[in-house]
Amino acid sequence: MSMQTKVSRDAHTAARYLDVADIAAIFRGQGPAAVFSRLADYIRDDYLRWDEFDKSSRVAKYSRLGVIELMPIADDNTYSFKCVNGHPHNTDRGLPTVMGFGALADVDTGAVRLISELTLTTALRTAATSALFAKVLARADSRRMALIGNGAQADFQALAFHHLLGIDEIRLFDIDAAATGKLMRNLHASGIRFRVCDSAAEAVKGADIVTTVTAEHVHAQVLRAGMIEPGMHVNAVGGDCPGKTELDPEILRMGPVFVEYEPQTRVEGELQNMPEDFAVTPFWKVLRGLEPGRTSPGQVTVFDSVGFALEDYSALRYVRDMAGKLGLGRALTLVPRLDDPKDIFSLTRSGTEEIRDAEQGVTQSCEKEAMLPSA
Amino acid sequence: MSMQTKVSRDAHTAARYLDVADIAAIFRGQGPAAVFSRLADYIRDDYLRWDEFDKSSRVAKYSRLGVIELMPIADDNTYSFKCVNGHPHNTDRGLPTVMGFGALADVDTGAVRLISELTLTTALRTAATSALFAKVLARADSRRMALIGNGAQADFQALAFHHLLGIDEIRLFDIDAAATGKLMRNLHASGIRFRVCDSAAEAVKGADIVTTVTAEHVHAQVLRAGMIEPGMHVNAVGGDCPGKTELDPEILRMGPVFVEYEPQTRVEGELQNMPEDFAVTPFWKVLRGLEPGRTSPGQVTVFDSVGFALEDYSALRYVRDMAGKLGLGRALTLVPRLDDPKDIFSLTRSGTEEIRDAEQGVTQSCEKEAMLPSA
Repeated sequence: MSMQTKVSRDAHTAARYLDVADIAAIFRGQGPAAVFSRLADYIRDDYLRWDEFDKSSRVAKYSRLGVIELMPIADDNTYSFKCVNGHPHNTDRGLPTVMGFGALADVDTGAVRLISELTLTTALRTAATSALFAKVLARADSRRMALIGNGAQADFQALAFHHLLGIDEIRLFDIDAAATGKLMRNLHASGIRFRVCDSAAEAVKGADIVTTVTAEHVHAQVLRAGMIEPGMHVNAVGGDCPGKTELDPEILRMGPVFVEYEPQTRVEGELQNMPEDFAVTPFWKVLRGLEPGRTSPGQVTVFDSVGFALEDYSALRYVRDMAGKLGLGRALTLVPRLDDPKDIFSLTRSGTEEIRDAEQGVTQSCEKEAMLPSA
Repeated sequence: MSMQTKVSRDAHTAARYLDVADIAAIFRGQGPAAVFSRLADYIRDDYLRWDEFDKSSRVAKYSRLGVIELMPIADDNTYSFKCVNGHPHNTDRGLPTVMGFGALADVDTGAVRLISELTLTTALRTAATSALFAKVLARADSRRMALIGNGAQADFQALAFHHLLGIDEIRLFDIDAAATGKLMRNLHASGIRFRVCDSAAEAVKGADIVTTVTAEHVHAQVLRAGMIEPGMHVNAVGGDCPGKTELDPEILRMGPVFVEYEPQTRVEGELQNMPEDFAVTPFWKVLRGLEPGRTSPGQVTVFDSVGFALEDYSALRYVRDMAGKLGLGRALTLVPRLDDPKDIFSLTRSGTEEIRDAEQGVTQSCEKEAMLPSA
């Protein structure tokens, strides 16, 4: 076999593995402003290429206590999927409500190139997506945000809106005071001014942007229509699966509603409380100038966020690129080198441990490869 | 936090990772007779529990050169999925045609417990499934098999039928003589008598079981109806995605056709050449005695194999259990321990590398845990 074939094959057989410590290292090394800004850029770039993606709603397995979902998407070059759960009662067991991991693979060969944790990364991309939508849809002079629900995702929402939109005052409300305390401790040095409120109504009053990110799995009305003032942008993050919504349905009639992937949002988002023909605007059309976003300062705009596979694709691209630049991650031997690729049986012979040992050296070549301009 | 909570949480946060060397070690350590026999038992046990599973067809992303698929399935306790590709031209690049990996997760929490390679394991489970079907459907006195297509999967088919059904003579045919040579070298010490044939017709003549496992992505007729003799069992493995079939459709009218999961087989199997109302028999119904299998020695029986998520669920259970017994695998820190599970943001602080280092010790506790009787 020629050297060239071998090098090209090594490139295909090396899968990089990133765990939560790697993602945390990216976050600390780059800082929140750069991470949210770059992540939002990756997500925007992919939304702008909307037609190039083979899209589908996620495949969900519902059980008594929660849901486990697969979220695949692909363009002509790269396939990605995320496996993610939602279990509201996990915190009783000391586990996060939402945990995930995912992969990138080459469309032309099916070879897996990256496996990454997507627990911390999902938190980052959800906040980056909210901030990207708000950057396009909220009033440009927005400075004050209400943040209803101060759990796991709230800290990230606060930081992303601070760094991407210049939000410098956040009014906090949660039925669990400990969650609010956690958020304020985590962000005490962020430069954001926080005010703890006694009710959602108090937090919302006078806000430019209202973010809801509550956890309870019910058809709740965290926001009532009477709380919403002209010109507000509503960033409704918590209503994201069947049976779980946060808004008084009347709020969706107060102004245009923007969505990620309409077929999925109809089932999972606030839209589940609306008639099937209720009009919504796909966000990619606004980005591409095909549909208007906000048309006046007094208009109410609503982002019915559920989380779409495209955003995980973008996030996986981002952590792959950053890990390549920073030399993070370890090599996984998912697909060993084979002298004869038709001879899978040869894998059963002894000596395959040596393949694994040899692959330990791949991290380095994997690093080098990732530094090359991408194809 | 009490010690008990910590232990229980550790159990949930430790994910075991198995690579191809681990699966190879199981295969060598147990030997093919035990591996195929136990794997077939796991698969049979799960087919017998058919009603307990939340089933769906796989989610496929088709591209110019191949397909990447997700195959999820779950019962009330355990969720599994496989990510697997099919790229016929991969061998030109030195890569296997089919590569995969998959995971097991707890339904009650969504926590991932196992990530395993499923390239070698898919080859093992596909052969074990074929042998299980044949054990039920072929004549009990079957001793001679025709094996048409001698590529990556053929070696495993030969071994599984040898050990599970007592097949001691196999007639080989492949348009690629190198593939046949590879198979005979790999299995030279298996105790199977091989005869290389010049045509499919020559290989099939006088056989008790006919296995087709060819790779070309076309509507082929590897077997013509005229080749099939009374009493034969046809194990049609290679026709497994839209546009790829191996049999003269007339063969499917020669006797009862048995399938894994009918909605998927209609789209992917030999059934794609038949009318929508063509009658088939789900294999689980035969196992449970709800439908007849073979009803006479002279009957022709056909297994229209495509590969179903249930078999990967069974295979993942098997490798999980064996890895636990043998102490194989490494711990992956997909979900780190959190003092406050609502505080995902704490992961971004420095010190998370220490979490990873601490997790290196988890393999051992992971081992111990796996030795406990399963819940």
